[in-house]
Amino acid sequence: MAEKETGRVEAFSDGVFAIAITLLILEIKVPKLSHDISPAALAAALLDLWPSYVAFLLSFFAILIMWINHHGLFNMVRRVNPGFLYANGFLLLLVSFVPFPTALLAEYLDGRAVNAAAVFYCGTFILISIGYNLIWQCMVSGDLLQHGISDTHIRKITLAYRYGMAVYATSTVVALFNGYVGLGMNLSLWVLWAILGYKPSNAS
Amino acid sequence: MAEKETGRVEAFSDGVFAIAITLLILEIKVPKLSHDISPAALAAALLDLWPSYVAFLLSFFAILIMWINHHGLFNMVRRVNPGFLYANGFLLLLVSFVPFPTALLAEYLDGRAVNAAAVFYCGTFILISIGYNLIWQCMVSGDLLQHGISDTHIRKITLAYRYGMAVYATSTVVALFNGYVGLGMNLSLWVLWAILGYKPSNAS
Amino acid sequence: MAEKETGRVEAFSDGVFAIAITLLILEIKVPKLSHDISPAALAAALLDLWPSYVAFLLSFFAILIMWINHHGLFNMVRRVNPGFLYANGFLLLLVSFVPFPTALLAEYLDGRAVNAAAVFYCGTFILISIGYNLIWQCMVSGDLLQHGISDTHIRKITLAYRYGMAVYATSTVVALFNGYVGLGMNLSLWVLWAILGYKPSNAS
Amino acid sequence: MAEKETGRVEAFSDGVFAIAITLLILEIKVPKLSHDISPAALAAALLDLWPSYVAFLLSFFAILIMWINHHGLFNMVRRVNPGFLYANGFLLLLVSFVPFPTALLAEYLDGRAVNAAAVFYCGTFILISIGYNLIWQCMVSGDLLQHGISDTHIRKITLAYRYGMAVYATSTVVALFNGYVGLGMNLSLWVLWAILGYKPSNAS
Repeated sequence: MAEKETGRVEAFSDGVFAIAITLLILEIKVPKLSHDISPAALAAALLDLWPSYVAFLLSFFAILIMWINHHGLFNMVRRVNPGFLYANGFLLLLVSFVPFPTALLAEYLDGRAVNAAAVFYCGTFILISIGYNLIWQCMVSGDLLQHGISDTHIRKITLAYRYGMAVYATSTVVALFNGYVGLGMNLSLWVLWAILGYKPSNAS
Repeated sequence: MAEKETGRVEAFSDGVFAIAITLLILEIKVPKLSHDISPAALAAALLDLWPSYVAFLLSFFAILIMWINHHGLFNMVRRVNPGFLYANGFLLLLVSFVPFPTALLAEYLDGRAVNAAAVFYCGTFILISIGYNLIWQCMVSGDLLQHGISDTHIRKITLAYRYGMAVYATSTVVALFNGYVGLGMNLSLWVLWAILGYKPSNAS
Repeated sequence: MAEKETGRVEAFSDGVFAIAITLLILEIKVPKLSHDISPAALAAALLDLWPSYVAFLLSFFAILIMWINHHGLFNMVRRVNPGFLYANGFLLLLVSFVPFPTALLAEYLDGRAVNAAAVFYCGTFILISIGYNLIWQCMVSGDLLQHGISDTHIRKITLAYRYGMAVYATSTVVALFNGYVGLGMNLSLWVLWAILGYKPSNAS
Repeated sequence: MAEKETGRVEAFSDGVFAIAITLLILEIKVPKLSHDISPAALAAALLDLWPSYVAFLLSFFAILIMWINHHGLFNMVRRVNPGFLYANGFLLLLVSFVPFPTALLAEYLDGRAVNAAAVFYCGTFILISIGYNLIWQCMVSGDLLQHGISDTHIRKITLAYRYGMAVYATSTVVALFNGYVGLGMNLSLWVLWAILGYKPSNAS
């Protein structure tokens, strides 16, 4: 019963992840130019969309990493409780929110207000990181973990999540002064997770 | 066979819930300002979007609670019949409709017409509540319930659904005079359900 | 193996049905009026959206019936073959197309061009009906049916699909002269299917 | 465990395929004409949308073929590893990107800039083809294949993927000079795959 419960929550979460990641493309708008525009002018207009491509790539990568991570957490869960479910709901709220800061970045990445857009974007990931910390705390304190996971391993994961939150907080502050550097810090963290995250010993 | 049937209807319903909840974000529109806008002006424009954030949070929370509730109902079902399937279809119609009153609220929450938008929003939940009542009645009168559910428990759930409908009807009337209070009443109900709704004895 | 194959095609199809049915809501556009509009004026604008509500209800109902029908077909399938898969792909193409004629209807249902919109809408269902006929023919002629389905039952279903196609062809022609009557004929057919379609003896 | 892992990655991928294929319809925009337009004028406007229909059909067919192909690959997989997961993630990125070049084609297929749009469209499929080659290489070199697949069969598939990449590269170059011919080459390849791709000996 508990197993079935976990499976259904996981399937619903996967649905939200899959839809949010696929909706990102709606943010890239086809340039509406005159019907008589030359191929070269259209090519130039397509190049001018680079902020949209960057925002799309960034957020696709972020949601993919988050999905893999979410999956790793659910593999460690033996059963669910209300706190866990609401922490997970809070995380899904934020995952489904990601297309908005992404579209914001696409619009302002090459404008004067880039820092404000980047602060908003990085700030969203502080909230996401709080979501993961809440889920993890529910898992540890609510005795939801699979048996046989060592305390050392638990402590390592706790630290990793706190570290993530610290990076996002820092990148948000940095983005106040230089949006590109702030975004670059987020990206570095995701690359790091992508490299670390799938060692079999961590993932299962 | 009956079990497989139930599973597929549940999976389809979950899909509609997951898509509707994730589509809500499309309602928050990136402010289209001049490319030369200052970061401070963009930040101000983002704050001005508060009605969109409120509408998004409200409806996300509502659909999440509805999904958990729907899940609770399906856990009590032993088999399905045509009436149940059409009652469920009617509910899915309304779930997929939610993004529209949400977008309406986002547009008019800070305008003079807020009451009209709130009445429309609350009115949608009267219909949703009728949908749940129909499903529940089909379950009880069509002998679809799992065995071993006590009459006391059934009566309690019947009352809870009627109570929900009464709250929505009241909030819709109240919203005619003050939209914010009407919406606040809905929110209170959802918070109450979130707190009550996951006692293991109710959920399974 | 064959069973797993069937299951995956069915899950993919269900996904397309669920997404198409939930995307219908994007067609109902929030009226963009002045911020100072009165509640009564907003209420009037919401009433003026009736063509959108009608188109939404009509297509939601149609896709729901089609999903139930599709489900009924897959329950009769023992194994799949390439022809069946491509016929199913053709049907999914049309299911995912439905939001467009729906939006068209919403835009022109109360205008002078209603007949053109209704012809386009009804014509889409001729194609859908061809899709179902193709799937069914692949099932019968490709020996994909479960064992133990009587020839009488097969003949009855063949006739029912041909009858559906004839109704759509007629409604499309009728819509040339009166769009409302053409749409009403489609609706009648769907109501008929909803009533007939779930007799246990037909559905399984 | 490994089996469950494969299943969840496959379900997530299927979700992205199903959503991307269903989002294609959003690219076909209802013509916004005067309320008093005649049925004949609306019919003419609907015919004028032919580039949208062509782009929709083309991309729907492409994603469907890609989904069947993806499915065939996963049927050959015994277990997954990190490289495979990221190659698959790269492919999903591109699948979810397809609605953008599709909308671009719909906008410019009947304009002067058609070649630029077609080059962009065909170029996207070069990347997609690289994605499939990466997945396949991970499968072969990472020992992820089911046992009992002959070296001859592996070599045949390797060649088929390289051939696909060569066709896309050629069609992209050709589209520089004639967009229609370039798109036609892609279509020919997909038709070829549709015919070849479901011989039982290749698919399982």
